[in-house]
Amino acid sequence: MPQNPDPVAPADDAARTMAQGLLATARHGALAVTDPETGTPGISRIALGLTPVGTPLTLISALAPHHAALAANPVAALMVGEPGPKGDPLTHPRLMIRVTARFIARDSTEHAVLRDHWLTTHPKSALYIDFADFALVRLEPLSALLNGGFGRAHRLTAEDLHL
Amino acid sequence: MPQNPDPVAPADDAARTMAQGLLATARHGALAVTDPETGTPGISRIALGLTPVGTPLTLISALAPHHAALAANPVAALMVGEPGPKGDPLTHPRLMIRVTARFIARDSTEHAVLRDHWLTTHPKSALYIDFADFALVRLEPLSALLNGGFGRAHRLTAEDLHL
Repeated sequence: MPQNPDPVAPADDAARTMAQGLLATARHGALAVTDPETGTPGISRIALGLTPVGTPLTLISALAPHHAALAANPVAALMVGEPGPKGDPLTHPRLMIRVTARFIARDSTEHAVLRDHWLTTHPKSALYIDFADFALVRLEPLSALLNGGFGRAHRLTAEDLHL
Repeated sequence: MPQNPDPVAPADDAARTMAQGLLATARHGALAVTDPETGTPGISRIALGLTPVGTPLTLISALAPHHAALAANPVAALMVGEPGPKGDPLTHPRLMIRVTARFIARDSTEHAVLRDHWLTTHPKSALYIDFADFALVRLEPLSALLNGGFGRAHRLTAEDLHL
């Protein structure tokens, strides 16, 4: 009998449904990056939307510290699932996704498609999405951990997040 | 005339007051760590309180991935300041603090003091704070960045955060 059983369970249908719901409804997230100057962690709040295939998409300014960080070290970690104002915040479900950031070239067809898609869910960003210092960045999932509250953690693959 | 003026301003009294308020009222935060297995970023939600001198304090389980990460690489980044349910989440103020984690030895006087202080603000954690796999961890600020909304960023020192 193992003395230290793995506290993280594999994905099941309930975990996949919860994870996909957290991702689909998130309007912002916390992004952990590697600070290129120190090699230590940095953290930022980012705006969040989805690509047409349901993967995370963000729009970031070149003035934001995570812009330079992602350009130097594209592997990052995204957390979504905000606690409400009541109850213990650690019992509220959250999803942590290990991602690779991919900046979308402004003159590409992909950029045109993602720009239009972003504006359907973030219409106010029409004010600045075409500024030269703003970039659309795909956050391609590598793997994920769902924490549904104390003692309910599940390990998910990128495929488990597909909507 | 500089072509690219620094978008981040030094601290002023309004920034210090806002930052101290965000930290004092936070009940949870997002913590960016370095994953010891990959050397890439990890992210977790943590419970948050203050030490008697007003610096961040957390209580973490040895089963949580950030426990091993902080033990291996104590420099981390903490974000506090949760958006409400309304409005653009990126206009809501947030504070990003670069920290060094310090685990508090369970048999120390410091642990007894911090344990009692934690329980005054987190009484429900009396159920598990004395479990052998839970640790009180001080997150000692190194520096901070306050983002008060678009175009209102301030750089703060650890001293600026003192309550």
